[in-house]
Amino acid sequence: MNFIPQWTIEKKRDGGVLSDAEIRQFIDGFTDGAVPEYQMAALAMAIFFRGMDVAETAALTDAMMRSGDILSWEACPLPTADKHSTGGIGDKISLMLAPLVATQGVAVPMISGRGLGITGGTLDKLESIPGYDTRLAIDAFQRIVAEVGCSIIGQTDRLAPADKKLYALRDVTGTVPSIPLITASIMSKKLAEGAGTLVFDVKFGRAAFMRTRENAEKLRDSLVSTGRRMGRKCAALLTPMDAPHGRTAGNAVEVAEAVETLKGAGPADTRALTLALAVEMVALARPDRKREEIAAALEKALSDGSALARFAAMVEAQGGDPRFIDDPRRLPQPGAVLVVKAPRAGRVADVDAERIGRIVLELGGGRKAVTDRIDHAAGIDALVQPGEEVAKGDCLMRLLAATPALAESLAPAAEKAVLLHDA
Amino acid sequence: MNFIPQWTIEKKRDGGVLSDAEIRQFIDGFTDGAVPEYQMAALAMAIFFRGMDVAETAALTDAMMRSGDILSWEACPLPTADKHSTGGIGDKISLMLAPLVATQGVAVPMISGRGLGITGGTLDKLESIPGYDTRLAIDAFQRIVAEVGCSIIGQTDRLAPADKKLYALRDVTGTVPSIPLITASIMSKKLAEGAGTLVFDVKFGRAAFMRTRENAEKLRDSLVSTGRRMGRKCAALLTPMDAPHGRTAGNAVEVAEAVETLKGAGPADTRALTLALAVEMVALARPDRKREEIAAALEKALSDGSALARFAAMVEAQGGDPRFIDDPRRLPQPGAVLVVKAPRAGRVADVDAERIGRIVLELGGGRKAVTDRIDHAAGIDALVQPGEEVAKGDCLMRLLAATPALAESLAPAAEKAVLLHDA
Repeated sequence: MNFIPQWTIEKKRDGGVLSDAEIRQFIDGFTDGAVPEYQMAALAMAIFFRGMDVAETAALTDAMMRSGDILSWEACPLPTADKHSTGGIGDKISLMLAPLVATQGVAVPMISGRGLGITGGTLDKLESIPGYDTRLAIDAFQRIVAEVGCSIIGQTDRLAPADKKLYALRDVTGTVPSIPLITASIMSKKLAEGAGTLVFDVKFGRAAFMRTRENAEKLRDSLVSTGRRMGRKCAALLTPMDAPHGRTAGNAVEVAEAVETLKGAGPADTRALTLALAVEMVALARPDRKREEIAAALEKALSDGSALARFAAMVEAQGGDPRFIDDPRRLPQPGAVLVVKAPRAGRVADVDAERIGRIVLELGGGRKAVTDRIDHAAGIDALVQPGEEVAKGDCLMRLLAATPALAESLAPAAEKAVLLHDA
Repeated sequence: MNFIPQWTIEKKRDGGVLSDAEIRQFIDGFTDGAVPEYQMAALAMAIFFRGMDVAETAALTDAMMRSGDILSWEACPLPTADKHSTGGIGDKISLMLAPLVATQGVAVPMISGRGLGITGGTLDKLESIPGYDTRLAIDAFQRIVAEVGCSIIGQTDRLAPADKKLYALRDVTGTVPSIPLITASIMSKKLAEGAGTLVFDVKFGRAAFMRTRENAEKLRDSLVSTGRRMGRKCAALLTPMDAPHGRTAGNAVEVAEAVETLKGAGPADTRALTLALAVEMVALARPDRKREEIAAALEKALSDGSALARFAAMVEAQGGDPRFIDDPRRLPQPGAVLVVKAPRAGRVADVDAERIGRIVLELGGGRKAVTDRIDHAAGIDALVQPGEEVAKGDCLMRLLAATPALAESLAPAAEKAVLLHDA
């Protein structure tokens, strides 16, 4: 029978369950141009209203995954694992997680994205490192993963091109916030990347894609059930994103904080989340090992320098100059540093991650449009965390900017981002 | 502030009420290409799910109406009125209604459409008449309306071009069955046409666009409230469309039946519906006259030949050869005529309008695609009507086809279209 795209749209519009064939034909047609964007937009909006069950979501994910190359790790002697985060402020976890997990005999082939809006991107952070190449060919990526145990590169046009095309369309048609569409977008790329184990860090809160815990739970369940249906080992953590992760937000500053954490120091929250995700990844990829033993081994890898050594090896393998690890001044430096001081004494009741994200964006550390250039040196460091006490005049955060004027202009917003209560 | 189309989509998606400005900017952008079709498709689907209130529907109608020319009838000495039908099987009402109303000092400037699928179109019927020109320039149209009192022409690209573009998009994106979108589509063209009074014939039933009376009532209310909000006198009738109107379905056969009715004969149902709609049009356009007096005057215009004379004058003014009025053989004639006989005696319990429509389509009297050519001679006549009694072997209908083989192939379907119960 001929495939008539509007029949599929009408079926979903009226609450029907689409067959695998209907979904595959629609996505294949959209990818090769036979199904025009206006039909895809109409279907996406119908999916927004009607949803999709697990089988439909898996079929959509599968069709999008098959729109491009699918990487194979059969030649890699180690089990493979990857993590996906739905995006947060100050989320430098991947920088530490990949080398940390690699210390445990689990290879981490990680394909990351760039930042947009208030949400930063791992790729932008890595590109703060002089010489670090995020655009490796797939064979180089596979070689580094096999040799070093981890590699982090950028999205290529050859993995899940249907997702790239669909995401651009969803972005301008009001069809982004749909659990099955989000699931298929995330999963199609991650499954094409080929790792055998996937761990999700699903954020919720005022600076997250999912504002409520309830929606984050729905997305978590959808991701995990779709991944399992498609034959991968999956787990997920829910992470609040009301306050930023750690004490830095930006690009070079987050790399510096990640290095501190890999040296066994760093903020407690960042370290704890990194360890929690690493335990999930290793436990799933290495079912022969006990969780308690894994947790202890991961702690040791942070304290004995072995995770840091993996990180240095990865940076070097990808063309980066690892000397910044001992000398952070080799990272991009801001033209101006402004200390934002506490207007009064008090206890930090809240640090507003959304406001922090907007300040970093205004400082030039993020992109308002995908074509914007990033100032890798711009950002925030020395940020207070909820629960801490400050005296009047203490540093709440430091604004790192290209010019003193830019930093000054954002100081009032920065002060507002920190809520002080009486201690 | 900049207009961001996806914000409007998201607002409607989330159940918001769009402002006049948002609707106008969206439609203006869609008309001139600044808003791409995929954004219009997404908004249309959001409107399908969320609906629009009367103010939004009026703003949408207004924006679509203003996308092209708006005709003025200020130079016409008479009040103007028009009718819109949502489309039926054997619906030749316009052919009689326009000249009939014109006899009462009300001018009828009627812009009609072509048939598609099982629904016929007044233009196709008129084009059965040798020489009749449906593509008049607007000034010729206005002159004939002023001189004759009525004219029926085809849609021009200059009236409500946004509707033409949006309808084509809705047709392939599953967004046709939405009351506000249907309302704006109908009303934008009718308002651009400029008649001061509008009467709607809203069909419901198995061969109608609206299957249920409930949905037809919703559409009626939406049409009338939108029209009134935009300053027109409006009324509407609900008409069942389970059985065809009259005893013919096709093109030339319907013209012949319309002529019979204008001669004071013709099927009772067709005559009654024509009179009912005519009373509404004249009563609204001529509030100085009483309904009973109007009804009597209309009956007289059918019986004394004055409505027929108007029809003849219109045909002649539009280049047609009026001799078919006295000699129906001057209309296109079929290559074959097949009498479908009653398989048994009984009372006609039902004539399935949808099946009749499909048979006419298969006979070549309709279009499966907009580019199809119509066989104006093809169709059905001598059709029985519900409530009539037949003896075994009596004629149920005649199939008029290009070839005997085509007629034969449709005879079984034709027999099934008539349900006989014991008398």
